[in-house]
Amino acid sequence: MFLNNKLFTFTFLLFSYAMSIRIFITGGTFDKEYNELTGELFFKDSHLPEMLKLGRSNINVEIRTLMMIDSLGMTNEDRQLIAHHCETAKEDRIIITHGTDTMAETATVLAGKIKNKTIVLTGAMIPYKFGSSDGLFNLGSALAFVQTLPGGIYIAMNGKYFSADNVRKNKQTGMFEELSK
Amino acid sequence: MFLNNKLFTFTFLLFSYAMSIRIFITGGTFDKEYNELTGELFFKDSHLPEMLKLGRSNINVEIRTLMMIDSLGMTNEDRQLIAHHCETAKEDRIIITHGTDTMAETATVLAGKIKNKTIVLTGAMIPYKFGSSDGLFNLGSALAFVQTLPGGIYIAMNGKYFSADNVRKNKQTGMFEELSK
Amino acid sequence: MFLNNKLFTFTFLLFSYAMSIRIFITGGTFDKEYNELTGELFFKDSHLPEMLKLGRSNINVEIRTLMMIDSLGMTNEDRQLIAHHCETAKEDRIIITHGTDTMAETATVLAGKIKNKTIVLTGAMIPYKFGSSDGLFNLGSALAFVQTLPGGIYIAMNGKYFSADNVRKNKQTGMFEELSK
Amino acid sequence: MFLNNKLFTFTFLLFSYAMSIRIFITGGTFDKEYNELTGELFFKDSHLPEMLKLGRSNINVEIRTLMMIDSLGMTNEDRQLIAHHCETAKEDRIIITHGTDTMAETATVLAGKIKNKTIVLTGAMIPYKFGSSDGLFNLGSALAFVQTLPGGIYIAMNGKYFSADNVRKNKQTGMFEELSK
Repeated sequence: MFLNNKLFTFTFLLFSYAMSIRIFITGGTFDKEYNELTGELFFKDSHLPEMLKLGRSNINVEIRTLMMIDSLGMTNEDRQLIAHHCETAKEDRIIITHGTDTMAETATVLAGKIKNKTIVLTGAMIPYKFGSSDGLFNLGSALAFVQTLPGGIYIAMNGKYFSADNVRKNKQTGMFEELSK
Repeated sequence: MFLNNKLFTFTFLLFSYAMSIRIFITGGTFDKEYNELTGELFFKDSHLPEMLKLGRSNINVEIRTLMMIDSLGMTNEDRQLIAHHCETAKEDRIIITHGTDTMAETATVLAGKIKNKTIVLTGAMIPYKFGSSDGLFNLGSALAFVQTLPGGIYIAMNGKYFSADNVRKNKQTGMFEELSK
Repeated sequence: MFLNNKLFTFTFLLFSYAMSIRIFITGGTFDKEYNELTGELFFKDSHLPEMLKLGRSNINVEIRTLMMIDSLGMTNEDRQLIAHHCETAKEDRIIITHGTDTMAETATVLAGKIKNKTIVLTGAMIPYKFGSSDGLFNLGSALAFVQTLPGGIYIAMNGKYFSADNVRKNKQTGMFEELSK
Repeated sequence: MFLNNKLFTFTFLLFSYAMSIRIFITGGTFDKEYNELTGELFFKDSHLPEMLKLGRSNINVEIRTLMMIDSLGMTNEDRQLIAHHCETAKEDRIIITHGTDTMAETATVLAGKIKNKTIVLTGAMIPYKFGSSDGLFNLGSALAFVQTLPGGIYIAMNGKYFSADNVRKNKQTGMFEELSK
């Protein structure tokens, strides 16, 4: 019942640090900042590089910003663009930072189009710049999940991973949960 | 060549959130605090529960403090105690927070004694209380690795995982690295 | 030309720590928090007690929340209420935490009504909870100014104090400045 | 009984923002950092400029680092050097950042040598870099006190100011207090 297949272990360790990971940034709470003149939240640059540095990450990553938007404003066209970049990326393992509100929707779109890649969407409930963010925790878990999960589209939030076809954000609690258990 | 076995995926998702994880705390930089009267670093309580809350973790974990020590002062007896707790824990998936200086040594001891469990050691270079800690990132990655890696003893640091028999801390850089590549 | 009057010094030191200071809270950026479910900023409780504790303040203060509002929404009625509380407070030295947008306007109203008390308005450009706030710095300076300035209505921002009749917030820079120099 | 002398007020406001303040840095907990390779605290650069920026300070200051030491290791020679710089500085208003352990001793030395200048010593119980520091609060109050107190040597800690001849650090509580009340 326990996953302890020798061949599996071997494959895992063999691939491990030849591994290169692509990170696509799409915005979301993760990267929001506070505009002290207007009192509003806005996007400037992504904090991903700073977060990876703080985490002393030593993994080979390529970061590219695709858009910097609130996920409530993400259109189907935006999702097609994300899917296109996932398809054409040379990497097989991809993290997408994304607003939490429509993260599950984007995961579904990707699940319909991308095969044979491990794609992990993650985000944050509190902006990284606000000091008490869950972003660093989520990034750490997303980086680990993307290295170890088999091909498929996943969401990494709340210390867990969810398959794209079995996840929703609970609007009352802000937590991600499985549709069925 | 890519891990996309249907059965594997199924097994993964089936087990996932029935999963219960044990966390053993042993001290290390992770949990150090600053004594403002003496100017020295010391241990009080573990920050693990606070960190899991900040990360909005929704995973079923059991936390137990085994010791609160600097890993340079960890004796063989201490390591036997940790191994004993790993063996007798009812959980198959265990995280150990540990000082980084002798983390690889403890991993080796555990590798010689524990079979058929996934054990992930992690820690931090900067105390969690100091604001700029890598601890939250490492905890997120350790939680993800412990859920997805096959049976074995691992170290999760710098966004990577290392097998117990192939890792050392580079004293010059503070980074963990493989002995051979 | 330098203020080094012996009698003055004597008076200062004599009064100093019999001194009791009143703090009135009215809201403003100072006390805003981030609602992770809606992505909006809101007011809950004041962070003043926590800030004074962090600053290891040992001054005798009485804190009272008069309102918890954005200063752009402050009405003349609100300002009359603040003035009333300043007049009837038993303390001669009063700090008011206030949104920066209309802080100068409230100072003007108070200057027209309160005599023989030292009243210092202060606030923040970044919420205290966001980690990179100027609030703690401003609170430290306001507490010092209120102990040392002669009777009058002042604004303490940007490390400076301004007399109520000679100050405005520069909307472009977010800095407070004198009307005339 | 209340300080509301018109001439005094006038003098205060007249001088205010022609005012230039000198800051001398001597080290202390304020500026300590954590060496993640050795686990020890050490000095690198001062965080004063960063702190003033965080506080959005708009005051004309000249910063100079005289030494970067733990105040327990401060010699009489060091104190003479500080006194010399205070005497020869062109500014009449000077802040000295200093370790708290012997802050009162340095204040006494300065009180014996410097006349007609307002000098405020301040420091912190927790390093600025540790996130939960009292440093920003103390710096805000020191900047305010140095602008408003008459000539003399003072310590600004715990939201209060103390005259050099009437202050000690309570080693049990870490708080500064008057010798006599």
